[in-house]
Amino acid sequence: MAPAPTVAVIGAGISGLTTLKMLDDYGIEAVGFEASDRIGGNWAFDNPNGSSSAYRSLHIDTSKHQLSFRDFPMPEEFPDFPHHSQIKQYLDDYAEAFDLLRLIEFENRVLHAERLDGGGWELTTERTGTRRFDALVVGNGHHWDPRFGDFPGEFTGEMIHSHAYVDPWDPLDLQDKRILVVGLGNSAADIAVELSSKVMRNEVVISTRSGAWIVPKYIAGKPADKYFATFPFLPYSWQRKAIQAMQPMSAGRPESYGLPTPNHKFFEAHPTQSVELPLRLGSGDITAKGNIARFDGRTVHFEDGTAQEFDVVIQATGYNTSFPFFDPDFLSADAHNHVPLYKRMFSPGIDDLVMVGFAQSTPTLFPFVEAQARLAAAWAAGLYRTPGRAEMEQVIVADEKKYIGHMLDTPRHQQQVDYFLYEHDLRTREIPAGRERAARLGGMIRTAAHA
Amino acid sequence: MAPAPTVAVIGAGISGLTTLKMLDDYGIEAVGFEASDRIGGNWAFDNPNGSSSAYRSLHIDTSKHQLSFRDFPMPEEFPDFPHHSQIKQYLDDYAEAFDLLRLIEFENRVLHAERLDGGGWELTTERTGTRRFDALVVGNGHHWDPRFGDFPGEFTGEMIHSHAYVDPWDPLDLQDKRILVVGLGNSAADIAVELSSKVMRNEVVISTRSGAWIVPKYIAGKPADKYFATFPFLPYSWQRKAIQAMQPMSAGRPESYGLPTPNHKFFEAHPTQSVELPLRLGSGDITAKGNIARFDGRTVHFEDGTAQEFDVVIQATGYNTSFPFFDPDFLSADAHNHVPLYKRMFSPGIDDLVMVGFAQSTPTLFPFVEAQARLAAAWAAGLYRTPGRAEMEQVIVADEKKYIGHMLDTPRHQQQVDYFLYEHDLRTREIPAGRERAARLGGMIRTAAHA
Repeated sequence: MAPAPTVAVIGAGISGLTTLKMLDDYGIEAVGFEASDRIGGNWAFDNPNGSSSAYRSLHIDTSKHQLSFRDFPMPEEFPDFPHHSQIKQYLDDYAEAFDLLRLIEFENRVLHAERLDGGGWELTTERTGTRRFDALVVGNGHHWDPRFGDFPGEFTGEMIHSHAYVDPWDPLDLQDKRILVVGLGNSAADIAVELSSKVMRNEVVISTRSGAWIVPKYIAGKPADKYFATFPFLPYSWQRKAIQAMQPMSAGRPESYGLPTPNHKFFEAHPTQSVELPLRLGSGDITAKGNIARFDGRTVHFEDGTAQEFDVVIQATGYNTSFPFFDPDFLSADAHNHVPLYKRMFSPGIDDLVMVGFAQSTPTLFPFVEAQARLAAAWAAGLYRTPGRAEMEQVIVADEKKYIGHMLDTPRHQQQVDYFLYEHDLRTREIPAGRERAARLGGMIRTAAHA
Repeated sequence: MAPAPTVAVIGAGISGLTTLKMLDDYGIEAVGFEASDRIGGNWAFDNPNGSSSAYRSLHIDTSKHQLSFRDFPMPEEFPDFPHHSQIKQYLDDYAEAFDLLRLIEFENRVLHAERLDGGGWELTTERTGTRRFDALVVGNGHHWDPRFGDFPGEFTGEMIHSHAYVDPWDPLDLQDKRILVVGLGNSAADIAVELSSKVMRNEVVISTRSGAWIVPKYIAGKPADKYFATFPFLPYSWQRKAIQAMQPMSAGRPESYGLPTPNHKFFEAHPTQSVELPLRLGSGDITAKGNIARFDGRTVHFEDGTAQEFDVVIQATGYNTSFPFFDPDFLSADAHNHVPLYKRMFSPGIDDLVMVGFAQSTPTLFPFVEAQARLAAAWAAGLYRTPGRAEMEQVIVADEKKYIGHMLDTPRHQQQVDYFLYEHDLRTREIPAGRERAARLGGMIRTAAHA
């Protein structure tokens, strides 16, 4: 057997942490590189690396029952929907339980990752110069690089992205203001709700291009996601239809609250989870508009022909998937956020690179990342091998059809997967098949010691 | 027929306004006395008469579909759950449509109302001295005289009643504070939710003696109260059982959110309508406690044996029913808020007095008051007459058994009625029977002109 490879892991958020833990379980030498002075990535509120999009009031939209890593349950005393500070605490506890901090170099951002001819990586880091590794794990996340809506004209009031929004007083003073929130995802809903509280004396309008279906966080007293599971043995399309049929039971049609009719059926796009948005719309605290046509000074023209003046525009319009440490020609998402990856992890033809956490996994991200980390570590240990390039490319197309073929073709949904189907596929098919391939053909990673 | 009586109406809130409108329809000479410079009572936010309990963010908890006066629909463009400023606008529009302002003397508080021997009233007013009227309508409301919980010990932090609460900065600065909200009614829920938003950085605990069932404002996209009606032709107890059986469908058991188990079944006390309270409890932003045992400086001891320090206590513990213009011996509520009134309107033995609006009507107060005003005007016009004193007293006992026999015996529930049953009884039984009695025996009010 070949000597174990050395592995670099970029990022110490949930992807980096779970991967480091699994690599450590295998006894593989791994170094985590983290730009910040702390772990947690997005969940480290006010993260000095600038990458956290968490606002002060953020609570996770997945209940703790679905959210826990499978090997590290959330504390009993946590509420159903933990606050970001509790998620951070949980990740700190996770890192401590598995002694992960010793594996991470903090404040040592990876400035450049260059793939060497014949395999292996040269990493240029902020603090420790240039270092070589046999394999690279990329876990830098996909919710940190703000994506702005591309609207004609110029808005002369204040404009920020939701990424920068902390609370009604940071970074802007948002009381007694006319505010337009652009987007209808979870952040848009949370921010619009927060700013529309009558005590803030704002006038809040929410503008949406695609519309959205709103789902509650609770149904009949139980976290809504306790009711949802996708079953691997039933056709996915049937299950979507069943969920579509149940929709009226949960929150009714968006038009009931004055929202535009969605341009898609229920579950053909990520639904927005908000208890409060329907209430605020139904109370007249927030009004809803369709898409923006153009900006003109303080005036925003909408596609329905109406226009309104605003002091502030908050774009809650999502994020770019980007890899600032790669040459764009080497690997990057297209303008539509599309990165073709085998099992959302492997770029065909690059044997010593794995991406962890690059998916929008419904209903939960944490166990999804843990499942990917499990596969990544088996790969690093030489116990998993992908199929050949041609088969990988076929499977990428087939999987994208399965997971996002029925969904809105937007940048947000390029990475959508169903956690239950994905995890089942990895556990029962992909990992056993990859093990068999590895047993037959050996691992994928060439070690420098072996070279 | 006797000459029409002169009528004084105390208060220009919804009770006074609807009664003045009906009296004017009959051509009866009526004068409204209002302490404030404006109409609206509780719905006049920041009312100079000090009687409004409306906080800045208050939205009515009854949907506009149930809320409208039957003879004056709410505007189409109103949201499902109007803001207090919209209710005020609606009442202004109502007063204008029926030209009611000419009937009201503003800033002319009734200081004393003395019943004359043999009937008739002498009113001492703030601005115009002493005046005589044949009949008196009392519509001074029952949500303006704060009732404080009676807990042993002394709390040395700041303590206010919810009546005084306006917003997080008025009258107290409520950021970065440890706050105890006492009570679990609608105001308690709204205030606790508002102050527990993480952006306020408060620690919020809610304490409840009786517990409460929480019901949502929306069910499946429609205002929840659109689903509820009580049918006069089915036994009320059966209908309560049906609602009790449906409860789990709406919001589940309070314990799911960490609330204490209610000391009563669903609908045996006024349920609390809140979409946000379960969410905030389930997110750990609010924690729930049982009853307070005693205060000790900044420390609050709870009946479960725990203790916690607070900076601020907000008592959302309801209101006293009081009539400051009456001699207490003449007519007053007992310590338990109990005022025995025939059809919640007539005090047996006082023929020339009618009370309007003295009920906690579920699910809606506005049409309830309108139904009472209709009866009050018929009474003033000599077209309605109560039965004799003995029968009135029997009916009072029977009606209280019907409406509140199954309910918690608390000051809050002394005035509970079911709007649908009440209105049906007035319209189909009580008014026709009273008309027949009046036709037989004449009106109840002795006019000075007639004397």
